[in-house]
Amino acid sequence: MRTIDWVDDAIEIIDQTVLPGELKILRLHTVGELVAAIQALAVRGAPALGVAGALGVALAARVHADDPQALAAAVHRIEHARPTAVNLARGARRAAELLPRGPQAVLAAALLVRDEEIAASAAMAELGADLIVELCGARPRLLTHCNTGGLAAVTVGTALGVVHELHQRGRLGGVIASETRPLLQGARLTSWELSQWGIEHRIAVDSAGPFLMARGEVDAVILGADRICANGDVINKIGSYAHALGARRAGLPFVVVAPESTVDLGTPSGDAVPIEDRGPAEITPWAPAANPAFDVTPHDLVTAIVTDRRVIRLDRSESV
Amino acid sequence: MRTIDWVDDAIEIIDQTVLPGELKILRLHTVGELVAAIQALAVRGAPALGVAGALGVALAARVHADDPQALAAAVHRIEHARPTAVNLARGARRAAELLPRGPQAVLAAALLVRDEEIAASAAMAELGADLIVELCGARPRLLTHCNTGGLAAVTVGTALGVVHELHQRGRLGGVIASETRPLLQGARLTSWELSQWGIEHRIAVDSAGPFLMARGEVDAVILGADRICANGDVINKIGSYAHALGARRAGLPFVVVAPESTVDLGTPSGDAVPIEDRGPAEITPWAPAANPAFDVTPHDLVTAIVTDRRVIRLDRSESV
Repeated sequence: MRTIDWVDDAIEIIDQTVLPGELKILRLHTVGELVAAIQALAVRGAPALGVAGALGVALAARVHADDPQALAAAVHRIEHARPTAVNLARGARRAAELLPRGPQAVLAAALLVRDEEIAASAAMAELGADLIVELCGARPRLLTHCNTGGLAAVTVGTALGVVHELHQRGRLGGVIASETRPLLQGARLTSWELSQWGIEHRIAVDSAGPFLMARGEVDAVILGADRICANGDVINKIGSYAHALGARRAGLPFVVVAPESTVDLGTPSGDAVPIEDRGPAEITPWAPAANPAFDVTPHDLVTAIVTDRRVIRLDRSESV
Repeated sequence: MRTIDWVDDAIEIIDQTVLPGELKILRLHTVGELVAAIQALAVRGAPALGVAGALGVALAARVHADDPQALAAAVHRIEHARPTAVNLARGARRAAELLPRGPQAVLAAALLVRDEEIAASAAMAELGADLIVELCGARPRLLTHCNTGGLAAVTVGTALGVVHELHQRGRLGGVIASETRPLLQGARLTSWELSQWGIEHRIAVDSAGPFLMARGEVDAVILGADRICANGDVINKIGSYAHALGARRAGLPFVVVAPESTVDLGTPSGDAVPIEDRGPAEITPWAPAANPAFDVTPHDLVTAIVTDRRVIRLDRSESV
């Protein structure tokens, strides 16, 4: 099953807002429907958003084939549907480069983005599993955050793809998935995917992560990235930084797994990244909120970054 | 308004299970009603439970004045309503010492426990506010965790009492209350109390705490304690340790406010404290959980402990 795909001239996505209670496929026929789905987090995760951006432009190219102004506006809307997601804009732009050649060429470019993401997941799973075994030895117990599985990509995902690969190799010692407030991607999506794969796991509240590390229940933290800055700072789901602090104090590896497309050499450091604040509605209706959707993990807390092409050992002063 | 009190020959409590949606006062006329309220967490928080234990024995002494056997059984039920709540049993035993002198003497002893809690809150508020001003200067912005307000005590509480005092002095720059998963004592109870006091505040998911500190939105962390070990390790609600790591990395004071009765010189360090795991039901019904209710903040991460009698500057190597 694919999280996002092009089927019969429309974009089909798994609606992640109703999982794990319901497995519902949404068919998106317009750019408005796609942007609404992106903003509602019906589709989410950096790699999946890259594909969504590309397929969105393919959709726009068909719908607005005779109206260049409406087409340009539609592409702009897709690119800016979520400000922190570098892959979304990049996927959209890759497809948009083909606009002069017509809708079919745009669609072909978008499908290539999709296929590259599928291949990237497989490559990251291999490289990441090798690294975790090297760092942790036999049967490591991993803590992961948010959802970085197939639901965040197209098929097996990034960090959770590594978990899946270790399980396949018989080398997985255990998984703790932090629930990931406010939207519970860990408790809802990661738990659902792990169950689908037959991988036993436990859910913990996010704030328990550092304590579970201190108590010796975790051998490494493994998670994804929404953006990797030129200096190695990692932008990822809120709560990643707290886990990184816990890992450092406990002397554990903190491993980031994300496709090469997440690396943004144009952003020098985390300070330069605008962090989306999603307002109080996700947390509580009765008081104002501070609700940053992402945080910045400074590069000195990151052991290694695994992409689909390489392993960057920040702990050995390797550069992004 | 008092969280728990003796009114017209019965115990009155604010029912904390329905806050913030509803402000409901429960009148408890029997020991059975009191025990049920304690077990349902309608009344909670170490100081409030101490008063509940004492007033419960006063209630039992009236109801069972002519039946010593029933009276002894009722006292036993109160003491053991929540096995881990040290203050509950301690409050009950203090009142029970007066049983030979009759119901009026028992009630007087219970009201003394109540009045001592009120006085302790006032003392902690003064000492804590002075310390925060000393550490942070004018108008500090504080981050707090769980509920340490009047709802956990009788009137203004422990750490939240300090927040209240700073507000009264016109010296409060802002408050972020972390929601405190899994039971949301911060989002439900602390937010409600701050609103009652007219104190503007924001709610954040627990895992955002360290990032909000790194981003410069917090000047100090202030929270309570369930137990303070002889070496200064602090046992408190899960998530406290992650905030302490965030405070240390950001160079911020981490201040613990708790009554002297929380100091347990019989426990050498946090390693010696059994941490209650409350099972998966509070987190998610569809997967196993790791659900430690408390964590251990090592003493080296604690700037100071404020009790009703003293300020212990751990950052200056002072001893508990």
